Amino acid sequence: MLDIERVRADFPILDRTVNGKPLVYLDSGASAQKPLAVIEAVTRAYAEEYSNVHRGLHYLSNLATDKYEAVRGTLQRFLNAQHEDEIIFTTGTTQAINLVAYGWAMPRFEPGDEIVLSIMEHHANIVPWHFMRERQGVVLRWVDCAPDGSLDPQSVIDAIGPRTKLVAITHMSNVLGTVVDVAAICKGAHDKGVPVMVDGSQAAVHMPVDMQALGCDFYAVTGHKLYGPSASGAVYISRARQAEMRPFLGGGDMIREVTRDTVTYNDPPHKFEAGTPGIVQQIGLGVAIDYMMAQGMGAIAAHEADLRDYAQSRLAGLNWLNIQGTALGKGAIFSFTLEGAAHAHDISTVLDKKGIAVRAGQHCAAPLMDHLGVTATCRASFAMYNTRDDVDKLVEALEFCHELFA
Amino acid sequence: MLDIERVRADFPILDRTVNGKPLVYLDSGASAQKPLAVIEAVTRAYAEEYSNVHRGLHYLSNLATDKYEAVRGTLQRFLNAQHEDEIIFTTGTTQAINLVAYGWAMPRFEPGDEIVLSIMEHHANIVPWHFMRERQGVVLRWVDCAPDGSLDPQSVIDAIGPRTKLVAITHMSNVLGTVVDVAAICKGAHDKGVPVMVDGSQAAVHMPVDMQALGCDFYAVTGHKLYGPSASGAVYISRARQAEMRPFLGGGDMIREVTRDTVTYNDPPHKFEAGTPGIVQQIGLGVAIDYMMAQGMGAIAAHEADLRDYAQSRLAGLNWLNIQGTALGKGAIFSFTLEGAAHAHDISTVLDKKGIAVRAGQHCAAPLMDHLGVTATCRASFAMYNTRDDVDKLVEALEFCHELFA
Repeated sequence: MLDIERVRADFPILDRTVNGKPLVYLDSGASAQKPLAVIEAVTRAYAEEYSNVHRGLHYLSNLATDKYEAVRGTLQRFLNAQHEDEIIFTTGTTQAINLVAYGWAMPRFEPGDEIVLSIMEHHANIVPWHFMRERQGVVLRWVDCAPDGSLDPQSVIDAIGPRTKLVAITHMSNVLGTVVDVAAICKGAHDKGVPVMVDGSQAAVHMPVDMQALGCDFYAVTGHKLYGPSASGAVYISRARQAEMRPFLGGGDMIREVTRDTVTYNDPPHKFEAGTPGIVQQIGLGVAIDYMMAQGMGAIAAHEADLRDYAQSRLAGLNWLNIQGTALGKGAIFSFTLEGAAHAHDISTVLDKKGIAVRAGQHCAAPLMDHLGVTATCRASFAMYNTRDDVDKLVEALEFCHELFA
Repeated sequence: MLDIERVRADFPILDRTVNGKPLVYLDSGASAQKPLAVIEAVTRAYAEEYSNVHRGLHYLSNLATDKYEAVRGTLQRFLNAQHEDEIIFTTGTTQAINLVAYGWAMPRFEPGDEIVLSIMEHHANIVPWHFMRERQGVVLRWVDCAPDGSLDPQSVIDAIGPRTKLVAITHMSNVLGTVVDVAAICKGAHDKGVPVMVDGSQAAVHMPVDMQALGCDFYAVTGHKLYGPSASGAVYISRARQAEMRPFLGGGDMIREVTRDTVTYNDPPHKFEAGTPGIVQQIGLGVAIDYMMAQGMGAIAAHEADLRDYAQSRLAGLNWLNIQGTALGKGAIFSFTLEGAAHAHDISTVLDKKGIAVRAGQHCAAPLMDHLGVTATCRASFAMYNTRDDVDKLVEALEFCHELFA
């Protein structure tokens, strides 16, 4: 079980006030706060152990390289990937999915080929495929979610046609909190010979994820949501898919030989990692992942399930609140609007005055907003450091909003 | 004039020892160390002021956004760009040049079109163009440097033919220290209607650079070499070239509207910045640039010119040392081999035992190494925090090497 007081004490920012009130941070879906261990690792890396990696033979370079490369193994364990070289370092899920689009999909897809994706995708898992629609005539096939936000995996599998070359799907909706049965989708897609790209940007933060159990081809995680530094991250790419990929970013480290007339590429994973990487960020991400694993992903998931249940029951009591997404087993993410009342932005501004940080807007998921028939929602997204008290404060502030705007 | 003792005191890592000896860090060409102000800014950003940017309306999000976006103006002043929106944030020069290749060049170039580049380019300014050679039949035209490492700008201009669509050129060689007359090349290239991509990864660290005086179209700088955090950086792209570019990375923030069937893009610079950026890195980079400007780029350049002159005169006394690159006005970067003696890697290992960090290898510049007829060199690269004493220690250690391997 999570020792919540100890966890909270590990996150220095949670001690601060905002607008004179103790911070209630409910915007972890956009980006998570960082434990002291991560901050200290970043500081130490710069103040005591900094050098470029892979490129020197001197002490600091070897030290930085060892610490940096060790994170690959940490991520392999975190994701239960079969091979360490299936972990490619990125600056986050956006770069990860662009790597898959540019490196794997673009050279392989013909006009009329199809990509199946859910209506719940984040723009990061939409726009790279729109590029392929615009530039090479690829067709996007959308699968809607049910009114409660759940997604029938069979509906995704059924959308796979003879021209489908890829399924691109989120593991957890960043708006609704819906957890998608990715394992079932992967099985159904693979039975039809179609690879699956999973956006794990939210899911990997909140539940154990297992590459070998899911059986996906590509799985992107976002370091800054995983309590790690900004611009850190990784993508799992199976060896089979890596073998089909051409390099994406060109530069140092990803080559074996360069002459005036020729270039040969390094072996994976370095083939897909060009130039000086985010050395310190990745070192910090490794510490963040270690921190999560030390708490236990099961314990984190159980704590957040309790928060979800508590928040669901408390928010259900506000009959003027429209909550989007009530799928069974969803994550602790709540998108809502106030009936006949203020714009989402006004609500978030009022909450902010009470020290409560929520997000308002489209949440980088415009097709889902269209599908839901809303222009914007407020979103309260929970993380391991949140408490039932945070839920109470949110409810209290929403009641204040309701009175204010009624 | 640089207050060198004060500068050194600002860099905490310079106090440490390596292998029992005080650190003499001569690997800044690979990556520079960070002043305390940068480290503290990073710590503060994570511990007190962290949130995602552009996406929330709450206090921390606004604070982080303000600090993050202010860096664009800092970089504009640093580079003397005419417009702030000509500064695009990147994770470094590798991403910058790939942005130019994928966003500007690839959609525009036909088979047989030519890119002119110097033999001194870093792989970051080679491999993206090799992609275009491999994938679309673009021809790379190489311009050699003179035996002293100097590059006649006219030879670059003369290499521009009717099929040339781009000149891609370094402003300062990372191996030889040669400073290239980029302004003359830009003028000559523009007279022929050809844009110029400048790799400023080294130059911007060591001398004042001025976009309006250079007149280039693209100019990439590397944050981690500019005393900033790893994975920080920016590229200057003139408005005229931006108008010709399509987006590169797809995701959040770079779009205006996304539907199932359509996508419209944000205005520059955001059009070219997808997803959650390196928030804290860029905030740290802003502090690093402020630190450099507070010292004065002229003062930094003068200090490093003194180091160069002193090093040149001391190293010239070692008649068993082969120095690569002696061009007039070069930067304080020295690549060398020991005559008839140990491999560059052995030398760097011996120097490391004495606490001296240098780099050995190809320095991500394989075509130049071929041109020079060497397989590897040692490289001592100086920065604003280095001293004549560092030069003396290098010379002493090289004499020890010479005796050891003689």
